[in-house]
Amino acid sequence: MNTEWIAVDWGTSHLRVWAMQGESVLDRAQSDRGMARVAKGDFQVALLDLIEGWLGREPVDVVACGMVGARQGWVEAPYTSVPCAAMPVDPIRVPDTDPRIRAFVVPGLKQLSPPDVMRGEETQIAGFLAGHQNWDGVICLPGTHTKWVQVSAGEVISFRTFMTGEMFELLQAQSVLKHSVGEGWDEAAFVEAAADTLSKPEQLAARLFGLRAADLLHGQDAGTARARLSGLLIGAELAATRAYWLGQQIAIIGAEGLSGVYAMALQHQGAFVETTNSTQSTLAGLSQARKLTRQIA
Amino acid sequence: MNTEWIAVDWGTSHLRVWAMQGESVLDRAQSDRGMARVAKGDFQVALLDLIEGWLGREPVDVVACGMVGARQGWVEAPYTSVPCAAMPVDPIRVPDTDPRIRAFVVPGLKQLSPPDVMRGEETQIAGFLAGHQNWDGVICLPGTHTKWVQVSAGEVISFRTFMTGEMFELLQAQSVLKHSVGEGWDEAAFVEAAADTLSKPEQLAARLFGLRAADLLHGQDAGTARARLSGLLIGAELAATRAYWLGQQIAIIGAEGLSGVYAMALQHQGAFVETTNSTQSTLAGLSQARKLTRQIA
Repeated sequence: MNTEWIAVDWGTSHLRVWAMQGESVLDRAQSDRGMARVAKGDFQVALLDLIEGWLGREPVDVVACGMVGARQGWVEAPYTSVPCAAMPVDPIRVPDTDPRIRAFVVPGLKQLSPPDVMRGEETQIAGFLAGHQNWDGVICLPGTHTKWVQVSAGEVISFRTFMTGEMFELLQAQSVLKHSVGEGWDEAAFVEAAADTLSKPEQLAARLFGLRAADLLHGQDAGTARARLSGLLIGAELAATRAYWLGQQIAIIGAEGLSGVYAMALQHQGAFVETTNSTQSTLAGLSQARKLTRQIA
Repeated sequence: MNTEWIAVDWGTSHLRVWAMQGESVLDRAQSDRGMARVAKGDFQVALLDLIEGWLGREPVDVVACGMVGARQGWVEAPYTSVPCAAMPVDPIRVPDTDPRIRAFVVPGLKQLSPPDVMRGEETQIAGFLAGHQNWDGVICLPGTHTKWVQVSAGEVISFRTFMTGEMFELLQAQSVLKHSVGEGWDEAAFVEAAADTLSKPEQLAARLFGLRAADLLHGQDAGTARARLSGLLIGAELAATRAYWLGQQIAIIGAEGLSGVYAMALQHQGAFVETTNSTQSTLAGLSQARKLTRQIA
């Protein structure tokens, strides 16, 4: 195997790596050694555990994005302020690495008012835009912290982060709702709940405990409750982002299941939505980042 | 000490007991053996641990309210459907108790549509109404699960439960916000945040992550973030309950600190608010419940 470079997506909870030749994937690996589980000083070890078999005599480029560029990360890659291109500055070189690698980290983006930050999504956006020349519209990147990003003339104009995914996990696993929310899914219940909070977002707080009460009083199915909880939270997010997506071209970049759920809620509002695989976008973006590192090599 | 009866407030996380003579408190005790920490069959032992010293040769009435009346509790005290009086049926006798006690549990209330339930708050409401003849208006009982209760002509007409307190705890202790929310309080920040989501409730989901970003980008104080988080959540709750409280007489029954926070947010909206101590209301309500048990003795 002739690894030309190594792509790295290093988030809070996971570390994923790909052995690359040009834009082709030769091999892949992953571990749970995300930012939250790696002590300062242990980043290179955590990475080499996964990629050592891909290294040879010549130094190989390693290009990483995600929380690894935070202040507590491998190297701090300072945020750039929007409006700006998704990848407006060159990736930051990690100093004093193992001689078999030349490692770089892609900087994140920040917005001063209202305050917001992203690390990792800028790379997916750059990858998406590399394949969509002159694309204007709104990109939704659903996940633990879902991002909504306004793109125009090749620049990120503004963005907004929602804790929808994290709230869903906390409520279903750790709140009183854990007794009533379980495995399964009910598409009609999801669509109805999303439409409910989208039209009456102020009722979100009132609807949540209703999931518990509907179980106690009417024996509501746990999968129906799960779909309803997801719908209530996503509906509230769509209410907050209406100015972003209404009448706009929308692209969703994310994991297949979650992207499909967002797409369904948006399509029920008459929106036109394109979905794109997030891993492909990440790799395309890291490939763009690598080109920037070659310019400065 | 001549204990005439024993009042018991038995919630999910705490067990509190009072030795009573008429409406006077002779002694009090508490433990963390709430519903969630007591196995079926261990309720009497958990209670006797606290009250054994108060018992004599003659059986003593023990009157309890709260989650102890749930299906998984000491004895199931079935819900009564609203509209109805706060304490419309006699307390349920616990069978086969230690001969030194005669134990009763106050039933909760339920609302079929939209589905909702309460256990414990009905006793505080009954206690409050016992001291307020012909009182019509809205009662707010802030806590882990805040209740809003519409009262007219001595009856509970409808009610609604909000997970505001539980959401606050989960978000400040277990979400990404735990890095940015800490000790301290900023009254102006609370009032501003509450007014913000009260007027734009759909923005709640967007504002939450902003607490993290404001710390990362502008070094926002952790106490300011805490007040802002509380304000955002309580403001959203007030938006959802506007039809309840607007133009109504409002009583808040709760712990002093939290009641004051709700009262401040409501007063900034021009509402007239009376606050009442929740322990006093509980004891007054259990005293009412005891009168019902004496009728059936």
